[in-house]
Amino acid sequence: MREWSVGIVGGSGYVGGELLRLLLGHPGVSDIQVTSRRHAGRRIGTVHPNLRGRTGLKFRRAEDLQPCDLIFIALPHGESAEATRQLAQLAPLLIDLGGDFRLDDPGTWRHYHGVDHPLPDELCEFVYGLPELHRERIRRASRISSAGCNATATILALHPLYSRGLVDISRTVVEVKAGTSQGGNAPTAGSHHPDRSGALRCYRPVGHRHVAEIKQELGLRPSDPLHFSATAVDMVRGVQAVCHVFLRDPSLTERDIWAIYRQDYGPEPFVRLVNEKRGPHRLPDPRPLAGTNFCDIGFVRDPDSSRLVVIAALDNLGKGAAGQAVQAFNIVSGHSETRALEFTGLYPV
Amino acid sequence: MREWSVGIVGGSGYVGGELLRLLLGHPGVSDIQVTSRRHAGRRIGTVHPNLRGRTGLKFRRAEDLQPCDLIFIALPHGESAEATRQLAQLAPLLIDLGGDFRLDDPGTWRHYHGVDHPLPDELCEFVYGLPELHRERIRRASRISSAGCNATATILALHPLYSRGLVDISRTVVEVKAGTSQGGNAPTAGSHHPDRSGALRCYRPVGHRHVAEIKQELGLRPSDPLHFSATAVDMVRGVQAVCHVFLRDPSLTERDIWAIYRQDYGPEPFVRLVNEKRGPHRLPDPRPLAGTNFCDIGFVRDPDSSRLVVIAALDNLGKGAAGQAVQAFNIVSGHSETRALEFTGLYPV
Amino acid sequence: MREWSVGIVGGSGYVGGELLRLLLGHPGVSDIQVTSRRHAGRRIGTVHPNLRGRTGLKFRRAEDLQPCDLIFIALPHGESAEATRQLAQLAPLLIDLGGDFRLDDPGTWRHYHGVDHPLPDELCEFVYGLPELHRERIRRASRISSAGCNATATILALHPLYSRGLVDISRTVVEVKAGTSQGGNAPTAGSHHPDRSGALRCYRPVGHRHVAEIKQELGLRPSDPLHFSATAVDMVRGVQAVCHVFLRDPSLTERDIWAIYRQDYGPEPFVRLVNEKRGPHRLPDPRPLAGTNFCDIGFVRDPDSSRLVVIAALDNLGKGAAGQAVQAFNIVSGHSETRALEFTGLYPV
Amino acid sequence: MREWSVGIVGGSGYVGGELLRLLLGHPGVSDIQVTSRRHAGRRIGTVHPNLRGRTGLKFRRAEDLQPCDLIFIALPHGESAEATRQLAQLAPLLIDLGGDFRLDDPGTWRHYHGVDHPLPDELCEFVYGLPELHRERIRRASRISSAGCNATATILALHPLYSRGLVDISRTVVEVKAGTSQGGNAPTAGSHHPDRSGALRCYRPVGHRHVAEIKQELGLRPSDPLHFSATAVDMVRGVQAVCHVFLRDPSLTERDIWAIYRQDYGPEPFVRLVNEKRGPHRLPDPRPLAGTNFCDIGFVRDPDSSRLVVIAALDNLGKGAAGQAVQAFNIVSGHSETRALEFTGLYPV
Repeated sequence: MREWSVGIVGGSGYVGGELLRLLLGHPGVSDIQVTSRRHAGRRIGTVHPNLRGRTGLKFRRAEDLQPCDLIFIALPHGESAEATRQLAQLAPLLIDLGGDFRLDDPGTWRHYHGVDHPLPDELCEFVYGLPELHRERIRRASRISSAGCNATATILALHPLYSRGLVDISRTVVEVKAGTSQGGNAPTAGSHHPDRSGALRCYRPVGHRHVAEIKQELGLRPSDPLHFSATAVDMVRGVQAVCHVFLRDPSLTERDIWAIYRQDYGPEPFVRLVNEKRGPHRLPDPRPLAGTNFCDIGFVRDPDSSRLVVIAALDNLGKGAAGQAVQAFNIVSGHSETRALEFTGLYPV
Repeated sequence: MREWSVGIVGGSGYVGGELLRLLLGHPGVSDIQVTSRRHAGRRIGTVHPNLRGRTGLKFRRAEDLQPCDLIFIALPHGESAEATRQLAQLAPLLIDLGGDFRLDDPGTWRHYHGVDHPLPDELCEFVYGLPELHRERIRRASRISSAGCNATATILALHPLYSRGLVDISRTVVEVKAGTSQGGNAPTAGSHHPDRSGALRCYRPVGHRHVAEIKQELGLRPSDPLHFSATAVDMVRGVQAVCHVFLRDPSLTERDIWAIYRQDYGPEPFVRLVNEKRGPHRLPDPRPLAGTNFCDIGFVRDPDSSRLVVIAALDNLGKGAAGQAVQAFNIVSGHSETRALEFTGLYPV
Repeated sequence: MREWSVGIVGGSGYVGGELLRLLLGHPGVSDIQVTSRRHAGRRIGTVHPNLRGRTGLKFRRAEDLQPCDLIFIALPHGESAEATRQLAQLAPLLIDLGGDFRLDDPGTWRHYHGVDHPLPDELCEFVYGLPELHRERIRRASRISSAGCNATATILALHPLYSRGLVDISRTVVEVKAGTSQGGNAPTAGSHHPDRSGALRCYRPVGHRHVAEIKQELGLRPSDPLHFSATAVDMVRGVQAVCHVFLRDPSLTERDIWAIYRQDYGPEPFVRLVNEKRGPHRLPDPRPLAGTNFCDIGFVRDPDSSRLVVIAALDNLGKGAAGQAVQAFNIVSGHSETRALEFTGLYPV
Repeated sequence: MREWSVGIVGGSGYVGGELLRLLLGHPGVSDIQVTSRRHAGRRIGTVHPNLRGRTGLKFRRAEDLQPCDLIFIALPHGESAEATRQLAQLAPLLIDLGGDFRLDDPGTWRHYHGVDHPLPDELCEFVYGLPELHRERIRRASRISSAGCNATATILALHPLYSRGLVDISRTVVEVKAGTSQGGNAPTAGSHHPDRSGALRCYRPVGHRHVAEIKQELGLRPSDPLHFSATAVDMVRGVQAVCHVFLRDPSLTERDIWAIYRQDYGPEPFVRLVNEKRGPHRLPDPRPLAGTNFCDIGFVRDPDSSRLVVIAALDNLGKGAAGQAVQAFNIVSGHSETRALEFTGLYPV
């Protein structure tokens, strides 16, 4: 199998660091270039202490990026669109980990952002990079847009139910708990340790920007409701989505629902259905998923109503970003889908 | 004003320790007896390190409790009912901080617990001890049952809306984040630090026992829905309730709703309406409430639907337990309602 | 007793916020002005969320500060000296909580800082504000310089031994664990939550600036050794100093040493000697001291050598800063030394 | 290369879980048996949630252990000695991760434990399993005793200096910060989350049992001093040893010392010398080492004295236990020493 030369644009951020960690261990990647505006010339271990001594690789300036087979774009939100045009000259395959190309439709983009997309014609070029939903399209894609971390958890939790029309879509409420690494590596008043440590900050009770892509992937229209809120907890890495859905047919049993989830996710290498009867680990918790590409899913049926609580957990830098992108690369390149994603996570940690 | 002699039964637990801290600083309390099965004979500072050197008081056995004016019962769940009969011989006023006497109706108790209440006739003797709802009944009571911590946050968040019939009661979803001190001071597999630290544990996605009292206080019947789930986060002390409610009249503005909350809580000394426009503290967070008797309440109106997200935060050992009980004592005894509850909380912490 | 009008310069910082919390509860303070460059005009509760609804006080500009009886200077390190000259025109009593006036001797200042002190003649005007060592001088002072937080813990731990010449001064090793609030409220790369959370950062293995004042107070010369290192742990508020000292007379028993500490600190209202035989709280831990003015001290004698491990803990914003300053104010003003400092701390928390 | 069949005795503990994680990914291990008294019959993923879906392996009873090539003994402290005699019948190679066989000399054992070792003749059969010191003996060993976690950090930090006689051995002070997983997976009062969270607990200021093996490996006699203390911080996984040593020749420069450490550790695959000039990661921190087999070492020279502060960090379950044991297995079995230990750690985390 041929070896790929790879570029990472925005390699000093947290997602960039995680991409580096994964790709340095990928046998199908022969050559890595990594750019950073601020750290050009420095060894990557000075910025990502976990990679100390792992490689002699140094950051370079974006202008010095040489043509290669594939570029991962790990720029802050809103910077991808601008960068894309130029990067497309350098590599035939682009995987964007920002949020600029996740929506298919320019009109939908305008609906959510209030302005036109800078490159509206490009939107439909990008395949939404969630392998569990779009594996075949990813395989043939030259442009891939990785899903957002909160969106990945929510979509994987709800898709089996929504795709079968089992849910009263007007009533779903999704509560996401998010780790602080989601906000990137730039210090802000909100990320200052004395202020942030131990805080429980409902930072987005309504109007989260990830809602747009969730609706798209669940087959909803922009005007359809999806009641979503997000709270940052004292956790660095991780997403947990607690989804309250209301079944249209209350006679559906827990057993029926397990059968549905198994049908969709049984063969999936990175979706684990968690079904313990008891014990502290009986429902998905992002803690032991740090560094992995797993999305754990479990649920509980409310015996007193039509409610089903579906819980999904993942690592926002892993399955929610870099891991998902590497999984997409594996699909495109013909590698085993789990290549370089074998890490099973730590416990306790 | 006369001084009260006070007993605390179950004084070695977390709630008992908080009661001690508050009552040792109460000018209307002249004499405190505190019992502990396990620690009888030891100074209280050996169990509650914050009270070191604060008092020479020692734990005594429950059998050695002498008659007094008031007994706070801070026993583990399920032990209050049994103890009550005997304690009623020792003091004319009982304030129970367990969960055995929070429901008014024996039938409702049976509905939730599956068995008959051990002292069904006593249930209606107890006043539900939330001053914001039952101040006048508390003033005349000889039996008070403090509200549960999750229930206190949820009821205070929702009561202004429910009492006015503004809400579609079939749709409300309440997501509670709870600190680990709620589980008491007995080590368990679930509270073991290496396993519990950093965990995000949805320990009660459905079927939380606090739902019964919440429904009672919101004027719902046991058969009415209230979609409630609770997640333990890596926090020792605190409750945050995120309540998604759906307004029956979507034309209600944020301004209208503020007016309603101000009408109900404006004069309340311990309910603070949080209404910042921006900044990291614009919505209630339990962190700076540790040790206080405050319940902070704020909300955000979803512009795209009839949803209103109401957020309440408090200290589960403070307003959610010991503080609320001392507030009730202040009401009964004719003290200023804020006596011994003046602590404003720390920040940062 | 007369009421004091008080100014707080630099009131939006963590130390300023703690001063506000304490002084708002002080019956001898009638009028408070508080300045902030950045937040002038805003209510203090918007910056210090624990003080929400506690007062209508707003920040003002330093230029708008009116003459008053006493000014607390809570400016960042290095800004006090400059401000002092002007503030001295506004109030007859200054209490500085920065580090600019802690050393008595201009030569010693030059030794440690490499440059001359900007106001060398002022240095000897300031009394070192540690009541346990300088109570009588504080009582008569018009200029007080509060001790540093790490210095307060270390000095109180070691003074009884050093003042009696019991220790081989060449061998003492002090290991301080520090909370992140010590670094102030300005976000930096080092305080960014995802990076700082869970870190164990030996930020000052040698050359800590607090060593100068520790040596001064222990009666050492600048050239005498004091082996000091400081590590920031994942804690917001607190200092723990673990001091390894080597007794010149190895026949000194644990009992002898307790007698010495009791002699020095027995009557002190804010030094608690911790002497549990067993249990998790048998040695000082800053956790339950947050918000208090206590310094807890305990020790263990190594049976196999002349080593004694003395451990001191305190709240860096309390006894290590604002609490100590209020204690000094109480001494100067003739109030009970514990006035407004009665909070006993929380547990668990 | 032949494949090894392996047994893990005590596989439900934290060290057992980490061994499983590593060995399941080891290409030279064909067959794993894992015992647990309490969980016999259950799938390992129910106890170690990170291994869910990773394997169908179940716990078995110790009595059901079949003969195999190698047994890892991961029993609680004090249980290895007893078990060894029987396990020696089942496998020609034993690697003990408890503390029963770390001392070479029965007399030294008696000195520290006050009683005779139960199998004194076996002591000298066991090779101390630190590859950096005993690689060649490990290669030929049939009994290996892995080093303690605190000991591993301290020995690797100090060995280059002690082995060359550069240090005044009477003066060294070692301060260890330890994570809570070191205490094992049994809930205790000391590990109860509400009590343990945020605590700074100097649990062993003197008399730590790891001192015996440290002295042995540094070439000290039991009567020689080594001033050691250990504090548990709010960290699950990790050890940081801050070692204050005093150079006999104060003219030794930082450069000289780097040369010494490079000489000893330059070729070592798992010792990384950390030598950043600045930034938050310039000294070793266990945080990004979780799950790895690295020991990071750095130091700072005190310009004002003969003191050198050497800091070592590692993962107590990785290099401090399971990783070290797998490294020893790689040496014995002729695998590359880094086999199954390639994980580079996460950041941020």
